[in-house]
Amino acid sequence: MIKVVLLGFGNVNSHLLNALHNNSKVSVIQVFNRNIIKMISPFEKIPFTDDISKIADADIYIIGIPDDAISSFSESLSFQNKLVVHTSGGAAMNALAAKNRRGVFYPLQTFSKQRKVAFKEIPICIEAENPADLELLRKLGETISENVVEISSEKRAKLHLAAVFVNNFVNHLYGIGSEILKDEKLPFDLLKPLIAETASKIKTLSPEEAQTGPAKRNDKKTIEKHLHLLENNSYRDFYEMFTKALKKD
Amino acid sequence: MIKVVLLGFGNVNSHLLNALHNNSKVSVIQVFNRNIIKMISPFEKIPFTDDISKIADADIYIIGIPDDAISSFSESLSFQNKLVVHTSGGAAMNALAAKNRRGVFYPLQTFSKQRKVAFKEIPICIEAENPADLELLRKLGETISENVVEISSEKRAKLHLAAVFVNNFVNHLYGIGSEILKDEKLPFDLLKPLIAETASKIKTLSPEEAQTGPAKRNDKKTIEKHLHLLENNSYRDFYEMFTKALKKD
Ligand SMILES: NC(=O)c1ccc[n+]([C@@H]2O[C@H](COP(=O)([O-])OP(=O)(O)OC[C@H]3O[C@@H](n4cnc5c(N)ncnc54)[C@H](OP(=O)(O)O)[C@@H]3O)[C@@H](O)[C@H]2O)c1
Ligand SMILES: NC(=O)c1ccc[n+]([C@@H]2O[C@H](COP(=O)([O-])OP(=O)(O)OC[C@H]3O[C@@H](n4cnc5c(N)ncnc54)[C@H](OP(=O)(O)O)[C@@H]3O)[C@@H](O)[C@H]2O)c1
Repeated sequence: MIKVVLLGFGNVNSHLLNALHNNSKVSVIQVFNRNIIKMISPFEKIPFTDDISKIADADIYIIGIPDDAISSFSESLSFQNKLVVHTSGGAAMNALAAKNRRGVFYPLQTFSKQRKVAFKEIPICIEAENPADLELLRKLGETISENVVEISSEKRAKLHLAAVFVNNFVNHLYGIGSEILKDEKLPFDLLKPLIAETASKIKTLSPEEAQTGPAKRNDKKTIEKHLHLLENNSYRDFYEMFTKALKKD
Repeated sequence: MIKVVLLGFGNVNSHLLNALHNNSKVSVIQVFNRNIIKMISPFEKIPFTDDISKIADADIYIIGIPDDAISSFSESLSFQNKLVVHTSGGAAMNALAAKNRRGVFYPLQTFSKQRKVAFKEIPICIEAENPADLELLRKLGETISENVVEISSEKRAKLHLAAVFVNNFVNHLYGIGSEILKDEKLPFDLLKPLIAETASKIKTLSPEEAQTGPAKRNDKKTIEKHLHLLENNSYRDFYEMFTKALKKD
């Protein structure tokens, strides 16, 4: 039985608790948060503390707090030589204080309170200072996901950067689409099947194979028409940059 | 029974045939294409012609050929005063020759030969010069889709523009993500669950509500790190433009 303590209880750690709860190989023996949290059903039996000096003895401590708080928070832990990991894509492993054995347990997904996610498919990127800890993280990861991969801090930084493109920036394009429709009093729902199919396509086609559209075809008439529709619009810069890039491909 | 002739047999019209085939209220009585096509199973019984003077008598003619060919092709049809529609998002209704009754039957989706699509959810945007034809197009649309909407050429042009953002440009971002990973010899598969969830989120959240990431949080440290990772990289321009726009939101 792998004993786990969760440090911080935001998006990631609350989803992790959901996934690790009722797991025959793992026991989440405690949740710590600097502010008091009421553990609600089905987690009401999991011990909670807001006292950093009362953190229980465990095999793995998982810090799930904002990136810029990881260093000072890990420094403030009163124990040492234990396996302490963070869940960040962007922070290096050595952002953690050196007094503990350091590691990373990064679930490559976007989490929000409102939405359930299927952990089974989520890649979990692990890293550790020593092989035994890496194996323990792998064991932990494999209880919830079919895709546990060792990835160095350097590669993880690039992976996180790529994630920003396909998640944050893609969502911004959804936002632009939505705004263009709003101006015409058309419902955003009209675009939803297209958005779903665009994402679904790359399950079987490479993005290169899936690429279509006026810029790709170098359909100058349509491009001109679109630029005209975007006159005096801040989205025009986006249109021009994408069109230029797609023509080059 | 609505009698339909398909003019051109590319991505759209072949998917339309799939959807209209075995439809109790519609009969596709002929397919025309300028080059000979062998109609393969299950369509081997549908009459085919490559002779423009032998196009059969029908209630609706659906032109599914590239936008810039619509005008001259519709002009070259030998009949007149029939309902002739195109399937384009970007072309105006009056791109069609005026000798026939004009209309539009635009399925708002991305079609490729390799992939099946569920027409039931695809918005079908219709337009016609007269009310009776509009009703006929609505009837036709409703045999395959639950979302048939009348949309003018002006609004459809904006809708198509929005579609370019959420489809073509989004796919280009998938491509950038894939390239960043390739440089690190990491498999694109790592990003697939994130891409799926990002698209899935906007089924229930608005793009605004779903927006996360370093730019949105104005997490300067991460942004700096990413810009550094992108040094001398053409993707840096994209990163900067999105970051600037997201900060403003
Ligand atoms: N969200 C995602 O989609 C996602 C995905 C993958 C990885 N990550 C990474 O996972 C980590 C956690 O992200 P998250 O989205 O779960 O964050 P979050 O929801 O913003 O987490 C907030 C949690 O951090 C605690 N916290 C904030 N500042 C603190 C500080 N200075 N000291 C101690 N605790 C502090 C908060 O405690 P209070 O309740 O007391 O304020 C709360 O429990 C980050 O490293 C992030 O990069 C996030
Ligand atoms: N693809 C999509 O995802 C999509 C989605 C919604 C709407 N649309 C619109 O639907 C229409 C068709 O698009 P598509 O993707 O189906 O096109 P496509 O696959 O490129 O269609 C090619 C078809 O057009 C014919 N054709 C090409 N040039 C012609 C010409 N000058 N005269 C007569 N026939 C010609 C071709 O005949 P040959 O076989 O003889 O070359 C072929 O049958 C366009 O208006 C497009 O904007 C496309």
